[in-house]
Amino acid sequence: MNSCIYPGSFDPVTNGHLDIIQRAANTFDRVVVAVLYNPNKKPFFTVDERIELLKKTTGDIGNIQIVSFSGLLIDFIENKNINVIVKGLRAVSDFEYEFQMALMNKKLSPKVETMFMMTNSKYSYISSSIIKEVAVLNGCIRGLVPEVVEEAIFDKIK
Amino acid sequence: MNSCIYPGSFDPVTNGHLDIIQRAANTFDRVVVAVLYNPNKKPFFTVDERIELLKKTTGDIGNIQIVSFSGLLIDFIENKNINVIVKGLRAVSDFEYEFQMALMNKKLSPKVETMFMMTNSKYSYISSSIIKEVAVLNGCIRGLVPEVVEEAIFDKIK
Amino acid sequence: MNSCIYPGSFDPVTNGHLDIIQRAANTFDRVVVAVLYNPNKKPFFTVDERIELLKKTTGDIGNIQIVSFSGLLIDFIENKNINVIVKGLRAVSDFEYEFQMALMNKKLSPKVETMFMMTNSKYSYISSSIIKEVAVLNGCIRGLVPEVVEEAIFDKIK
Amino acid sequence: MNSCIYPGSFDPVTNGHLDIIQRAANTFDRVVVAVLYNPNKKPFFTVDERIELLKKTTGDIGNIQIVSFSGLLIDFIENKNINVIVKGLRAVSDFEYEFQMALMNKKLSPKVETMFMMTNSKYSYISSSIIKEVAVLNGCIRGLVPEVVEEAIFDKIK
Amino acid sequence: MNSCIYPGSFDPVTNGHLDIIQRAANTFDRVVVAVLYNPNKKPFFTVDERIELLKKTTGDIGNIQIVSFSGLLIDFIENKNINVIVKGLRAVSDFEYEFQMALMNKKLSPKVETMFMMTNSKYSYISSSIIKEVAVLNGCIRGLVPEVVEEAIFDKIK
Amino acid sequence: MNSCIYPGSFDPVTNGHLDIIQRAANTFDRVVVAVLYNPNKKPFFTVDERIELLKKTTGDIGNIQIVSFSGLLIDFIENKNINVIVKGLRAVSDFEYEFQMALMNKKLSPKVETMFMMTNSKYSYISSSIIKEVAVLNGCIRGLVPEVVEEAIFDKIK
Repeated sequence: MNSCIYPGSFDPVTNGHLDIIQRAANTFDRVVVAVLYNPNKKPFFTVDERIELLKKTTGDIGNIQIVSFSGLLIDFIENKNINVIVKGLRAVSDFEYEFQMALMNKKLSPKVETMFMMTNSKYSYISSSIIKEVAVLNGCIRGLVPEVVEEAIFDKIK
Repeated sequence: MNSCIYPGSFDPVTNGHLDIIQRAANTFDRVVVAVLYNPNKKPFFTVDERIELLKKTTGDIGNIQIVSFSGLLIDFIENKNINVIVKGLRAVSDFEYEFQMALMNKKLSPKVETMFMMTNSKYSYISSSIIKEVAVLNGCIRGLVPEVVEEAIFDKIK
Repeated sequence: MNSCIYPGSFDPVTNGHLDIIQRAANTFDRVVVAVLYNPNKKPFFTVDERIELLKKTTGDIGNIQIVSFSGLLIDFIENKNINVIVKGLRAVSDFEYEFQMALMNKKLSPKVETMFMMTNSKYSYISSSIIKEVAVLNGCIRGLVPEVVEEAIFDKIK
Repeated sequence: MNSCIYPGSFDPVTNGHLDIIQRAANTFDRVVVAVLYNPNKKPFFTVDERIELLKKTTGDIGNIQIVSFSGLLIDFIENKNINVIVKGLRAVSDFEYEFQMALMNKKLSPKVETMFMMTNSKYSYISSSIIKEVAVLNGCIRGLVPEVVEEAIFDKIK
Repeated sequence: MNSCIYPGSFDPVTNGHLDIIQRAANTFDRVVVAVLYNPNKKPFFTVDERIELLKKTTGDIGNIQIVSFSGLLIDFIENKNINVIVKGLRAVSDFEYEFQMALMNKKLSPKVETMFMMTNSKYSYISSSIIKEVAVLNGCIRGLVPEVVEEAIFDKIK
Repeated sequence: MNSCIYPGSFDPVTNGHLDIIQRAANTFDRVVVAVLYNPNKKPFFTVDERIELLKKTTGDIGNIQIVSFSGLLIDFIENKNINVIVKGLRAVSDFEYEFQMALMNKKLSPKVETMFMMTNSKYSYISSSIIKEVAVLNGCIRGLVPEVVEEAIFDKIK
């Protein structure tokens, strides 16, 4: 069985993330969506809230699993029969940072491959941070995140 | 069965290509290496020679198949149960061109995904053209291509 | 009256070009669309055909004018009361080339400004050349060019 | 009347900013220079000081207006008869960030266009932050900012 | 005598830095390795520890000198008979930042040249920060830093 | 004695090249300016004309030598006591190509270093090709090349 892991902060999940999750699920037998818990950063949503939003917005995809992890991704997938890390690429700046991470992960675990998928061009300007920034200033984020995420963001702001 | 296609000119195959082929073969159940026949370009090696060199240098990989194609890649993989195109990325300029191709291919066939793998950093400066350029000027290309390819290049030059 | 010129080969006009023309026409009082006649290049469509296709696809925009030019753009706009060159930007590689041209034009005529507009993200992978390449291989280009242009391309290929 | 807005932090205004303001004023009937008040950031100069420095250094340009704003730029220009945002571009990294902002602003208000002007190459390495960094270490910033700004920076440091 | 200075934080020195130091020492008569003391940043290793690690790992190179500095690099090399700053470049993002610094340094002291050397491709993904990040998560950093640096990092973490 | 070689087509030499030559001559004891003779390309000026123009425009620099070469640069400098190749960098696209060449040259001759100098920002948009393109269309190239080169270009065009 070909499995892959799609790691990220998902703080919160956007339509760009969901597009990658759906396409990865069409390509691999199993997709593990892994929410990073970083004890040194103060997130907007807790890990539990982020997982909850991912579950609500991916309910119709059968072959995915949503988990959280902390520490090195490479350690997390050790013994899990996962050899592929999937990442979305939007722009040149993504490209350089992701390349550095992929080369480091290859050094840490040579058997693991990072495979990059292009973000759909209609989501190329979306990131969790710009969406939160716009929402905090009361801007319209309809169409950039699912409705349930939109509501959760505005609830959190209030 | 998860299959992918790795298209290219392979004029000739380099150690950078072989690294991607090996890693793709570790990741997918089957890898189709597809040599582009472009009637409008005058290649260094004929399609048959390029296929021959690929066969000689990938003999120990069980789950690959070497074919040639002409026309649109998307048309070629129609009805072949292949949904993934694998491409290697070396640098920012690769990235932009490959992105354009991947978006065009997605438009032509929405069910097909392009997945990018990073070229091993030790091959990041290799391309078939720079290798031929150096060989024509009698420079040493040992280590950049397999020995059998090196010999074929110098035979062709003579 | 604020006028601008939007120069290009338009061989042929694409939906990406039309998006820029429409948006420039919303922003400036008058937009001169200028088709470059380059005696050293063998185009796909003649200048007259390119102008004809532009006219057919921009008929509903009141404040534009379609012309051809050869030689230096800066010389062409001399004495025409146009101080703004509009260019579309799609990607980093566009950016560098266009920057070089804009700085050269500024040196040639300091009073002329080049203003860049972003190509709509849904057209970011379109160029006249990739469209012709796909069409020649009998690929579907619906949605990338207006229908009248699509027909003209396939007529020309036959 | 063609109006544009040139938003920024202007903390403080540099010769690079002044070059864009002057050229925008030559191109548009009216230029609104809009100083961002960001309650979450601790600036070097207060908004009032930044406006004061802009006024002192643009006194000879007739068709500009200097204002401050907070919140979303798109909300600020609503009902102001401004449809063009002008931004200066210096380098590839500017380009990507500005593209993301421009696409987001287009989503928030489709009728507003962002138009990019190239920074004059002689100011391509200047930014408000590098100027402050150099000044704090007692380096010479003559020629990078107007004299009145230079004095204000060194007064503030003391 | 041709001297150069190689400035940096070296917090801590990596195999990528050591490669540049060695190659600069082969090219110039004297290489001054200059460790930046930045009072506004909380480093991982103190300046003294960083100098100590540099000394331990460059002991076999005869023509280098290891010093610390604070303030502007240009002021530091004034009166030291050094006219060349050496910097390593890994990627496009390095390139843009380093270009900005080099142009600013040229403005501050026109007689000083910045010369860039490419980082060896096998170290292109290494930076002091990613190494510390990985070590903190207990990942293996063998081969990215000399053994004595590896030990010092893990000692400091404990 | 520290020697370097500055290779190029110099077809013809521009003010950007001259700026690099002057600065290299300030930094190294000897600068060899090496004009590439490429039998497969049809140049604008012959190698002899290009050398002549270089001599006329660098007459006041004592420590340079102007030569021509063909074949691999690395072979040319073998046995010449030159260990440094100097290249000018203008933009990101230069950077990637030059990086590839520098890594290839390092593979061909590990003891040779490529050192990059930034092109002065006021020449960042100049290249021999854009200058010839503008001149052919009768545009003004004053300030981009020395006067003697300007005359030679217009003589050749007639």
